[in-house]
Amino acid sequence: MSFSPLVDRLLESLRVLPGVGPKTAQRMALHLLERDREGGRRLASVLDQALEHVGYCRRCRTLTEEALCSICSSSRRDGSVLCIVESPADLLAIEDAGGYRGYYYVLHGHLSPLDGIGPEDIGLDQLEARLDEGGVEEVILATNPTVEGEATAHYIAEQIRERGLRLSRLAYGLPMGGELEYVDGGTLSRAFNGRQPFLGE
Amino acid sequence: MSFSPLVDRLLESLRVLPGVGPKTAQRMALHLLERDREGGRRLASVLDQALEHVGYCRRCRTLTEEALCSICSSSRRDGSVLCIVESPADLLAIEDAGGYRGYYYVLHGHLSPLDGIGPEDIGLDQLEARLDEGGVEEVILATNPTVEGEATAHYIAEQIRERGLRLSRLAYGLPMGGELEYVDGGTLSRAFNGRQPFLGE
Ligand SMILES: [Zn+2]
Ligand SMILES: [Zn+2]
Repeated sequence: MSFSPLVDRLLESLRVLPGVGPKTAQRMALHLLERDREGGRRLASVLDQALEHVGYCRRCRTLTEEALCSICSSSRRDGSVLCIVESPADLLAIEDAGGYRGYYYVLHGHLSPLDGIGPEDIGLDQLEARLDEGGVEEVILATNPTVEGEATAHYIAEQIRERGLRLSRLAYGLPMGGELEYVDGGTLSRAFNGRQPFLGE
Repeated sequence: MSFSPLVDRLLESLRVLPGVGPKTAQRMALHLLERDREGGRRLASVLDQALEHVGYCRRCRTLTEEALCSICSSSRRDGSVLCIVESPADLLAIEDAGGYRGYYYVLHGHLSPLDGIGPEDIGLDQLEARLDEGGVEEVILATNPTVEGEATAHYIAEQIRERGLRLSRLAYGLPMGGELEYVDGGTLSRAFNGRQPFLGE
């Protein structure tokens, strides 16, 4: 037994959303059809518009409906630093943390040979072109602290090493406010190896 | 800091979905924009079609894009029994459990005076019209075993009592396969009060 064909198609379509299984899709579909048709119509229309108009910033590849994103169009950023992130969400997290004033470059993923994701798929050819523009003196490799993010950072470092730019990687260590006993062993050992002189100020 | 205006509108629109907070909306939007534009387009289109064409079956009020749902259009059901449920999902659960061969009537909710949800909002006027058609001999009140479902069942029972139909309510009791010690007190006490002769077969 199932719902009507069109409701079944809606359930199936909702499952393209990450983390949405059959039960959740059913709850979502019934909610929209029974309780919030207006919200559902708005969602369908905005989703359609976003997929039509949102593309990658032609300079940093973050998501934007303009040719250049708001950061790339700003002249008040520091053009000598370029921070490479895996996702627009990482870019946002760094902006929200505050303090960084340079530009970004968004990979939209990481290298993953087993999934057939190679250098061009994460825009590394375009990264070369970006660096060819000149002006960049330091590249910050802010890929995720995962095996794949680490491998991607190393690959990029190799690729651009001959340019003689300063290369840096975000520090590994204890998360602020965490308790030592709950920190995983890999992080703890990284924090030990990366220990800094304590100035006792 | 935020994403571009259109991406921000997409995040906001996704939050009409039940259980979707800011973080989940972000994960969903980025997934569609970065990894599955085709699936996103299909979702937008099917959602739009469903909201346009799916309405209530004019006989039982379940969701369907036809005038009559597949159950109401079947002549192989038992017209003497009408089962009243709160939601199309409940109808589906009963169909999946098997054994019931009568028709349904879907309330799309329950009475909730505090939320301004009265008898007409759950189609009780139309239920009278349905019963006026004749043929129904038993009404099964299969609203949820909750305070609201219980109150709604009582209200409907009052409303249609004068018709002299047989009225029944789903049995309360222990869930199959559960362990007694984990069953809540209310259910346990209902199971005691509703105890049946044990035939020892
Ligand atoms: Zn940009
Ligand atoms: Zn029907």
